[in-house]
Amino acid sequence: MTKKDFTHLDKATGNPAMVDVGEKKLTQRFAKASCKVVLGKEIMQSLNDNSELITKKGPVFQTAIIAGTMGAKKTAELIPLCHPLGMDDCKVTIEAIGEEEILITCTTKVTGKTGVEMEAMTGASVAALTIYDMCKGFSHDILIKEVKLEEKTGGKRDFKR
Amino acid sequence: MTKKDFTHLDKATGNPAMVDVGEKKLTQRFAKASCKVVLGKEIMQSLNDNSELITKKGPVFQTAIIAGTMGAKKTAELIPLCHPLGMDDCKVTIEAIGEEEILITCTTKVTGKTGVEMEAMTGASVAALTIYDMCKGFSHDILIKEVKLEEKTGGKRDFKR
Amino acid sequence: MTKKDFTHLDKATGNPAMVDVGEKKLTQRFAKASCKVVLGKEIMQSLNDNSELITKKGPVFQTAIIAGTMGAKKTAELIPLCHPLGMDDCKVTIEAIGEEEILITCTTKVTGKTGVEMEAMTGASVAALTIYDMCKGFSHDILIKEVKLEEKTGGKRDFKR
Amino acid sequence: MTKKDFTHLDKATGNPAMVDVGEKKLTQRFAKASCKVVLGKEIMQSLNDNSELITKKGPVFQTAIIAGTMGAKKTAELIPLCHPLGMDDCKVTIEAIGEEEILITCTTKVTGKTGVEMEAMTGASVAALTIYDMCKGFSHDILIKEVKLEEKTGGKRDFKR
Amino acid sequence: MTKKDFTHLDKATGNPAMVDVGEKKLTQRFAKASCKVVLGKEIMQSLNDNSELITKKGPVFQTAIIAGTMGAKKTAELIPLCHPLGMDDCKVTIEAIGEEEILITCTTKVTGKTGVEMEAMTGASVAALTIYDMCKGFSHDILIKEVKLEEKTGGKRDFKR
Amino acid sequence: MTKKDFTHLDKATGNPAMVDVGEKKLTQRFAKASCKVVLGKEIMQSLNDNSELITKKGPVFQTAIIAGTMGAKKTAELIPLCHPLGMDDCKVTIEAIGEEEILITCTTKVTGKTGVEMEAMTGASVAALTIYDMCKGFSHDILIKEVKLEEKTGGKRDFKR
Repeated sequence: MTKKDFTHLDKATGNPAMVDVGEKKLTQRFAKASCKVVLGKEIMQSLNDNSELITKKGPVFQTAIIAGTMGAKKTAELIPLCHPLGMDDCKVTIEAIGEEEILITCTTKVTGKTGVEMEAMTGASVAALTIYDMCKGFSHDILIKEVKLEEKTGGKRDFKR
Repeated sequence: MTKKDFTHLDKATGNPAMVDVGEKKLTQRFAKASCKVVLGKEIMQSLNDNSELITKKGPVFQTAIIAGTMGAKKTAELIPLCHPLGMDDCKVTIEAIGEEEILITCTTKVTGKTGVEMEAMTGASVAALTIYDMCKGFSHDILIKEVKLEEKTGGKRDFKR
Repeated sequence: MTKKDFTHLDKATGNPAMVDVGEKKLTQRFAKASCKVVLGKEIMQSLNDNSELITKKGPVFQTAIIAGTMGAKKTAELIPLCHPLGMDDCKVTIEAIGEEEILITCTTKVTGKTGVEMEAMTGASVAALTIYDMCKGFSHDILIKEVKLEEKTGGKRDFKR
Repeated sequence: MTKKDFTHLDKATGNPAMVDVGEKKLTQRFAKASCKVVLGKEIMQSLNDNSELITKKGPVFQTAIIAGTMGAKKTAELIPLCHPLGMDDCKVTIEAIGEEEILITCTTKVTGKTGVEMEAMTGASVAALTIYDMCKGFSHDILIKEVKLEEKTGGKRDFKR
Repeated sequence: MTKKDFTHLDKATGNPAMVDVGEKKLTQRFAKASCKVVLGKEIMQSLNDNSELITKKGPVFQTAIIAGTMGAKKTAELIPLCHPLGMDDCKVTIEAIGEEEILITCTTKVTGKTGVEMEAMTGASVAALTIYDMCKGFSHDILIKEVKLEEKTGGKRDFKR
Repeated sequence: MTKKDFTHLDKATGNPAMVDVGEKKLTQRFAKASCKVVLGKEIMQSLNDNSELITKKGPVFQTAIIAGTMGAKKTAELIPLCHPLGMDDCKVTIEAIGEEEILITCTTKVTGKTGVEMEAMTGASVAALTIYDMCKGFSHDILIKEVKLEEKTGGKRDFKR
């Protein structure tokens, strides 16, 4: 059994270091992350008045979808030890969950030597921050909660929550 | 009383649009955001073994502090309708909260026409994503919970949670 | 009368060089650029079927508006000798002109030592390229024509077409 | 026959979305875009005095060539739904067309799952904006006209104007 | 007398941290950095054949000048704890020093709360790396030696070598 | 024997141009660059007091390691004619050399059509600039010297100093 460890700390020095993926094979990798944003009833009602919730589209949600997609592409710039990667696909979706919350999902795919879970996590986070930015004129009492990985496949170990 | 509204939607067309701050005065602005990350006992124990928790520094926390600071500087690139701003200060701190969680705090300052709350929120989020990236070798069962604004001053309305 | 010249070529060496604005005053500056894109009847009809033209919003136009706004913020990264600037405002609008074309307008404002006409030109161009990207599934016979400055105020010489 | 459609709109929701190229094969792809810039006789004469036109090089043209090449590399950062791609080659050329105009050409190559036509279009556009920036000390009566794709090969459908 | 210290380490925790310049005054700041690159006789001869050395311009030097200028603008993105700043001016010059070396100089100006010495150092370094990149087809036996600050004014303490 | 030449100048026009690597094979490539920074006894003593030198880690060195790694990932953005590349690995190490200097090493790996020597050179340079930035509170009499390529393998010609 492999001993679990901080993969981003160099064994010899303990300093932060990228993982060497030079010997790994190219495989098709997939990841899915999600995030909830608690907006409260007033903002949700305003989104509804603006047809965002019924149509699942509209200017607030679409701005967040685009920001999340562009944010996912910036992952290797933001996260110090992430490998620079291409991406085969990135999708962001947003929907209402009950009367006070929305659920953001970001899925990513790549054919590469390393996974795209950080890309999915980053895409979901940037979409959530964008929702926050666009709704903060109502209130700063908004909570981004539960950014988490839902699923990943194609690497050494698959993961599903 | 000002009617609350989506400040980032153009009144005439309903399309996404930056807020015009041309007539606003330069003021000293401050914001503070926080974020909790649930790592679980195994990772917390490993961080402890690595002296991260006692010293409040170490390679994992320091990488996250630097990533958060650099991420805060990238806010206007990530959030579509944020104004490009300088920054007078940005500080990221990380500490253990109980046996399973850490608390990330990001404070930002600017002398500008608009606030730095998105910078603080983005800095905290990128620090959290970096912690996730550096600990995911142990487990993907990590939860970024509760990214939220704690405080802002210097704008039209102060906010404190 | 000031002799007109290549302001971005160093007098002594003839090499490319930024203009020194150290002694210039901060003034409120405004610029407006426009761009026409010839899409042809088929794509225009499809945009119409998708309600983009009537509502002047929708996913294609909104993606272009956001890309144009974000592109304007990247001007100093793209144009080698542009000064890095903040921005007080940036608006992108898109509308149909007749049966085959759309008109993109980008307005920018800053309180600064130098103008924002390159920001307006860049914003309009990136919005146009985004429209192209989103419509090229129909045809590559799309023409971005007439990117031009419409107006600028606040500098040494105002300009209006 | 494939029904033409907005490839960047999600079939289910109508929201903007990247195209999934996960199942596509790597092929050698090529694209060529062009752009004309109407500078007028005075600027053209000054470029001539500066030997730019005869030698086809010089500080103005070379700055634009470099900006166009670097701009092409930034395509996936600028155009929201473009895939992040490597690039095997990117060339920008500039030449005089008659007494008032110049012609910018940008060619791009990649071995990838998706084409590089947006890279060629972006490279030509950024080169044109740079020419504009460097000549605007003479006059703002400069027109960037006819940014268009000239040719693409290596994808599902070749295109040649 | 002020005790000298690591200004980028937080007093309380010892962790890396930006310096708070919120209370500092805007002053006109200037910095000059230089860098020598040892190219060797063969490359210098080829630059000479290409007229780079006599004219002090040409494609190799101009590409480096532009890269250095654009690199200086990226300083706050590259150096983790640098404040994001505007810039009033940035000039890069290159000249031959004897038969084997060139000297790169980068001067920067800003009206700001903090200095632009890192911008000048970064500009000189990126210009040198670009020279290296463009000459490495001859030989990798090229040495970037002596990147250093020559002068700074406008802050708490002026410096001149 | 291949005639040596400026590989980044277009044969026909003499203008700067990317090298076309479309026909090259993917190979495993490695590069190693190094850089010395002369800090002087006072700063070295302070680093020692801070345990940086003994442990070879600590906030100054770790910040530089992270900046160097992130800087290496930005190479194609900084160096105009570099190809955009992924990276399989990037490691930065820092150690004391005698009483006044430190030695920075950056190694890079990719499976690609072109080498990663510019990435290694850029990583070492950005790490050095970061060290400079963090120590300049003591003195600006710091010298970045001898940025050079130590080794490269995997391309047409291997190199080892």
